[in-house]
Amino acid sequence: MAEMPELLVLSKRADEYCALLQVAKLPNLEIKTALSPKVEIVFGEPDLICEALDSLPALVWAQSTWAGVEPLLDPNLRRDYILTNARGVFGPLMSEFVFGYLLLHERKILQRLDAQRQHRWNPSLTGTLRGKTLGLLGVGSIGAHLASTAKHFGLHVRGFTRSSENCADVDTYFHANLPAFASGLDYLVSLLPNTAETKQIIDADLLQALPAHAILINAGRGSAVKELALVEALEAGRLALAVLDVFEREPLPTEHIFWRTRNLLITSHTAAPSFPTDILRLFIENYHLYLDHEPLMYRVDFERGY
Amino acid sequence: MAEMPELLVLSKRADEYCALLQVAKLPNLEIKTALSPKVEIVFGEPDLICEALDSLPALVWAQSTWAGVEPLLDPNLRRDYILTNARGVFGPLMSEFVFGYLLLHERKILQRLDAQRQHRWNPSLTGTLRGKTLGLLGVGSIGAHLASTAKHFGLHVRGFTRSSENCADVDTYFHANLPAFASGLDYLVSLLPNTAETKQIIDADLLQALPAHAILINAGRGSAVKELALVEALEAGRLALAVLDVFEREPLPTEHIFWRTRNLLITSHTAAPSFPTDILRLFIENYHLYLDHEPLMYRVDFERGY
Repeated sequence: MAEMPELLVLSKRADEYCALLQVAKLPNLEIKTALSPKVEIVFGEPDLICEALDSLPALVWAQSTWAGVEPLLDPNLRRDYILTNARGVFGPLMSEFVFGYLLLHERKILQRLDAQRQHRWNPSLTGTLRGKTLGLLGVGSIGAHLASTAKHFGLHVRGFTRSSENCADVDTYFHANLPAFASGLDYLVSLLPNTAETKQIIDADLLQALPAHAILINAGRGSAVKELALVEALEAGRLALAVLDVFEREPLPTEHIFWRTRNLLITSHTAAPSFPTDILRLFIENYHLYLDHEPLMYRVDFERGY
Repeated sequence: MAEMPELLVLSKRADEYCALLQVAKLPNLEIKTALSPKVEIVFGEPDLICEALDSLPALVWAQSTWAGVEPLLDPNLRRDYILTNARGVFGPLMSEFVFGYLLLHERKILQRLDAQRQHRWNPSLTGTLRGKTLGLLGVGSIGAHLASTAKHFGLHVRGFTRSSENCADVDTYFHANLPAFASGLDYLVSLLPNTAETKQIIDADLLQALPAHAILINAGRGSAVKELALVEALEAGRLALAVLDVFEREPLPTEHIFWRTRNLLITSHTAAPSFPTDILRLFIENYHLYLDHEPLMYRVDFERGY
């Protein structure tokens, strides 16, 4: 580590981040917004970092402003630096996203709007979250926050993980047998990252195991969903609603069938945005660890992919 | 109390309630669905109970299936019986209602639907509940539940009450000075019952004290809102959104200006429905107290009005 490490900010919101960094007055830090051979730390979006990797001979640590770091996981890219991602800040935002859409459905908000357009009093009974069962595909820090919100609203919670069972708000864990996990769920939320194991895990079999009144929300990565199987289930009425925030290709191409699929809502990767103040707080915490030669938080395992 | 008290069920959902009562096998109880001079207990909707009052000479106790008991508060009606209402079961439902609509707004759900109709990827930044300030007009058991949900989502909570200060999730209490209470609120939720003190409490002065980006939700009683002042504030853009569940006259008359007021959502008194299993549980608890000659829960003070 240099006495005065150079930090390169590579972000669409570089101006905002640099302004916040100035205010934070971090010790011993030289802030750059253009490439320089002495850059030791990069802070920014994975796609921008990816493009700069070959021009950063002195790189020691890259802090991503996003949770997802796929562009940097390509096995053809160098891995001789510490990669940390953004974690812990997205749970509350994701809870707002998921429960906003679950309540949209249960409270029949769109039906009530339709009635209002017709100046029609519509006292039809509302649904409720209470007593329903939520299944979480992936229970990291975001899943744990969703589970806590679910408990607040009186839901039962199932979690599907590789092996971990450390969230007290999950009532039942599954590590295999996806159809058994899916059977009887009212809501299925995927938070899975894009890895070899999660590819198209939400396939025809899994969708078939869900009740026809179930809602699927994908707020992890688009690769987890077998797209045509989902379209078929929705068009056949074997699934009540899908809310998709993420897609194999983003932005979702104009000609994609999802735009025309019934009971499918598209939220354009807005579920859990990286608010600069949140992300910078993570960076500052990690920077102090870096100065103290301590292990950094939220380190990504290049092999595992998260 | 008779050895075998007669219970009259007076409800639009009498069949459901009677079926549940059969299952519950309450001791020493004779269940009626038609008037009889020996009826000692009435269980049902206040408007139906109201019509039957003169034909119930032996009435000792009336359990309302609703929270609001206005029809029975008319000073010209008899008050020689114990009136209990439904409480404690509406908090979770009201939280779902209020936060469903707050999230509809913050997550820009309707704007995202519009974009989707145009097959347009819309990555516009979402808002968040976190850090916002919620003001509760009235902090009974429902308000306390809303406050707990607000805390879960990271909001600040102000409460306006006559004198009570017993909800730990309320950060700041106000008992007078409504404009000071309203100043700086992001969300104002009224849970006020219909009483002389609450009549038109949401008037031009209170609305003027709210920021222009604020949301008003009325889930108490319609009488709390000065209707024309609200229409003026919304049409002038001095208030971002009003969600009204309750009205001076229900169903809201077809010709009412609210149907044509911009940024006003009408939810037709569906915010916190009385689910029979919830309400019957209350009745059963009270019935056991009644048999034991203990004071009943949720007794209404005819003078105070709740």
